[in-house]
Amino acid sequence: MFFPDKNVILREVGPRDGFQAEASFIPAQLKTEVIESLADAGFSHIQAVSFVHPGKVPQMADAQEVCGLLKKRASVSYSGLALNVRGVERAVEAGLGVVEVSASASNTHSLKNAGMTQEQAREALEKMAVRAKALGLTVWASIQCAFGCAYEGAVPPERVKETARAVLDQGVDFLGLADTTGMAVPTQVQSLVSELLPLAGKTPLFLHLHDTRGLGLVNLLAALECGVTRFDTALGGMGGCPFVPGAAGNIATEDTLHLLESLGIRTGINKTQVARASRRLEAFLGHAFSGKLYRMIQMEQ
Amino acid sequence: MFFPDKNVILREVGPRDGFQAEASFIPAQLKTEVIESLADAGFSHIQAVSFVHPGKVPQMADAQEVCGLLKKRASVSYSGLALNVRGVERAVEAGLGVVEVSASASNTHSLKNAGMTQEQAREALEKMAVRAKALGLTVWASIQCAFGCAYEGAVPPERVKETARAVLDQGVDFLGLADTTGMAVPTQVQSLVSELLPLAGKTPLFLHLHDTRGLGLVNLLAALECGVTRFDTALGGMGGCPFVPGAAGNIATEDTLHLLESLGIRTGINKTQVARASRRLEAFLGHAFSGKLYRMIQMEQ
Repeated sequence: MFFPDKNVILREVGPRDGFQAEASFIPAQLKTEVIESLADAGFSHIQAVSFVHPGKVPQMADAQEVCGLLKKRASVSYSGLALNVRGVERAVEAGLGVVEVSASASNTHSLKNAGMTQEQAREALEKMAVRAKALGLTVWASIQCAFGCAYEGAVPPERVKETARAVLDQGVDFLGLADTTGMAVPTQVQSLVSELLPLAGKTPLFLHLHDTRGLGLVNLLAALECGVTRFDTALGGMGGCPFVPGAAGNIATEDTLHLLESLGIRTGINKTQVARASRRLEAFLGHAFSGKLYRMIQMEQ
Repeated sequence: MFFPDKNVILREVGPRDGFQAEASFIPAQLKTEVIESLADAGFSHIQAVSFVHPGKVPQMADAQEVCGLLKKRASVSYSGLALNVRGVERAVEAGLGVVEVSASASNTHSLKNAGMTQEQAREALEKMAVRAKALGLTVWASIQCAFGCAYEGAVPPERVKETARAVLDQGVDFLGLADTTGMAVPTQVQSLVSELLPLAGKTPLFLHLHDTRGLGLVNLLAALECGVTRFDTALGGMGGCPFVPGAAGNIATEDTLHLLESLGIRTGINKTQVARASRRLEAFLGHAFSGKLYRMIQMEQ
């Protein structure tokens, strides 16, 4: 095992990707307190909210309020996910400096998830990117289903590269490969990442991994070996479906930190503080998350 | 990532290490049916029962009955865990050809778990091994807490090696390193395995990994790179404490098979059949296990 980099940047996505999967509404005050404690723990990037129709994702109905409650910190950038140009404008109105957009590498997933063909989704992304840049925002763009699609099965690497080129053409600041349904396996991660890194050039590449089939951290290790240094994680491994007990969401922040620390890789993030936030949310929501380490940390103290 | 071996032998330990962690008693008939379906799925080694005082582990009270119900198969060896010489004799009375014994590398763990100092535990192991060999049994011996102890913390590699030498002196057939409390990290696995492989010589080395802190499969990958080809796994990731929802047990058989298959490594085991057994047990016990893939397989069919 050889890892070319000794520093890794984690981005906490639990407050968006995790919270939205919960059936119980988390009040804005608690959302904010959790986000603040993640900032205290050392994160420099936190995906705080999404600007989406409250009818579709009720958990995000208070996005504006949450952003208003967050303290401004020079060391932390908060981002919001936007699905259209109006979402981009709402991010600015909420005082955020970073917006996230995405396009799917699977046509079926694009139609089911966003109600748009891949072509339409790319056009929508272009419009969002242009508007975001005009408004002075930093843009993080993800390619969803980069490692497979629950509807279509395997997604050809050529299709991912083609989507990546279209996304990079918009001058986005960060390019992400998202394993939306947790279908990635380590050899595939290494092969796709090796093709995408030169394509992305100076645009930093990040991975968004889910642990749906148990290979989340193995895939992270595979990417680390190829020189990827940016990953999305969620506190407690939040995400997935609240109606399937223990269903897997994102790779867990605490488990990832445990792994990285064991490899001598620095992140500047304190896993005990993250675990406290997970335990607090777990107590409020009344069910456990799929992450492992956060429970041990609590028990050991 | 480079893996020297293209064949791996998994040993299913769920029927002992997993079942004993369950609060609900699993009737002998269901235990047997699950074990048979694991044999049908392709396992050649299954840890079926333990011979322990029923007052201590009520779930194993019907060990003799379970062994009596199992069909004899030329391709499958069933084993039983013994804690003393009487346990070894019970294995023979139950018709088993394989017995398992262990000694801890941590004195505190040995005292708490077995009520014996390390020295006493090694003497007990010697007696069991001598009796087992005299009875014509194959002996699998594990070193518990090889990667750390919940009571003592770090366990010096020298202590593991010393315990290994004492165990090997008894002429056991297989030597295992058990991460009893899931404290192993990948660099440590590679370092310890590299020291133990030459020490074990012709005695095959196996790893028994728990996923308590989320690093189970990462540790397996690390061991694979060093040439270890034998691992214990449990269907559904059973094990751990039934009173902590989703608490982690052994590495999950299905998740491990998913990983190995993705690396082109053969085991001869059908993960869908294993997953069906996990779903059946889950339905009987009324709670989910910590493994990930077994749920997806069910949902996808």
